[in-house]
Amino acid sequence: MDPEAGEILTQEDFFLPPVKYEYLDHTADVQLHAWGDSLQEAFEQCGMAMFGYMTELNYVEIKEVHTIEATADDMLGLLYHFLDELLFLFSAEPNIICRKLVITEFNTECFRIVCKCYGEEFQIGKHPQGSEVKAITYSAMQIIDEPKDNKFEVFVIIDI
Amino acid sequence: MDPEAGEILTQEDFFLPPVKYEYLDHTADVQLHAWGDSLQEAFEQCGMAMFGYMTELNYVEIKEVHTIEATADDMLGLLYHFLDELLFLFSAEPNIICRKLVITEFNTECFRIVCKCYGEEFQIGKHPQGSEVKAITYSAMQIIDEPKDNKFEVFVIIDI
Repeated sequence: MDPEAGEILTQEDFFLPPVKYEYLDHTADVQLHAWGDSLQEAFEQCGMAMFGYMTELNYVEIKEVHTIEATADDMLGLLYHFLDELLFLFSAEPNIICRKLVITEFNTECFRIVCKCYGEEFQIGKHPQGSEVKAITYSAMQIIDEPKDNKFEVFVIIDI
Repeated sequence: MDPEAGEILTQEDFFLPPVKYEYLDHTADVQLHAWGDSLQEAFEQCGMAMFGYMTELNYVEIKEVHTIEATADDMLGLLYHFLDELLFLFSAEPNIICRKLVITEFNTECFRIVCKCYGEEFQIGKHPQGSEVKAITYSAMQIIDEPKDNKFEVFVIIDI
C-alpha cells in the first residue's frame, strides 16, 4: 500500500464501470448453548433458544399448545430429532412459533421425548423476523450430562 | 407431531421460564463471483464486489485515490493478496472505502498487481454498514482464465 496517498483526480477518474459481479451461496451458522438444573431443562431451553433466533420471543403470546414426540437411538440423536420436530412445527402449516416448551416425558433409556409446545401462529408484522433456521446439525454437538456443579448443558450448531 | 393440536390452556401454562441460553460463535461466509472481458477486469470487479458487501456503493463518492500493490507466487495467491490489500485499505486508518478499482499493472508472470483505488473515507451515517469482512479465504477459490466465450471469471469466499 502506497503511503503517499491522495493523488490528483482527473475527469476520467469519476467514470464508473458497469457491475459485473454477484453474491452467491451465503451460508451461516450459530451455536446454541443452553443449560439447566436437569438435562431435560437444558433440552427445553435449547428448543426455546432456537425459537428465539427465529423471532423476538417477547412478541410471542401463548395462545395454543401443541404436543410433539421425538425418538432416536442415542442422546445426540434425541437432541437432534427433538429440535428437528420443533423446526417442523414452525415450518409446516400452521407455522407455530413457541414461547415455552415443557417436556412431559424424557426417557433417556429408550430415547424418547414428549413435549408440550406453547405459542401461537407466526404472523409477519406481529413477530419480528429473525434468521431462518435451515437445519439442525450434528456438528460439534455436545451434551454435558454428568456435570460437577449440577449445570447440565447442551451445545448445538444450527444452519441459518 | 400431534395432529390433534390445540389443547385447553390452564393458568399455569402462561408462566414463563427464566432464560438459560445464549448464542455463540456466529460464523458466516459469502461467495463473490466476478467476471470481465479480461482477467484483470474480473479481478477489479471482484474487489468492487467485496467493497459492495461492506456498504451500499451508491453512497460512496470518488474523492481520493490510493495505490496498492500485491505480489504472490501464483495466480490464486495473487487474487488473495490483492483482496487482502484492499481489505487492509479499509481496515487501517483512514478506512478507505472504494467505489472503483483500476488495475494499472497486471503481471501474470511475476504475479504482481498495482491498482488505483478510488473512493473516500468510510463515514458512519453517510455509508450504510453492510457486513464486516473478517477475512479472505482460499476455500473453493477459482480463476477461469481460459474461457471459451471470453468471459473471464473468479470465485472467492470471504468470511463475514
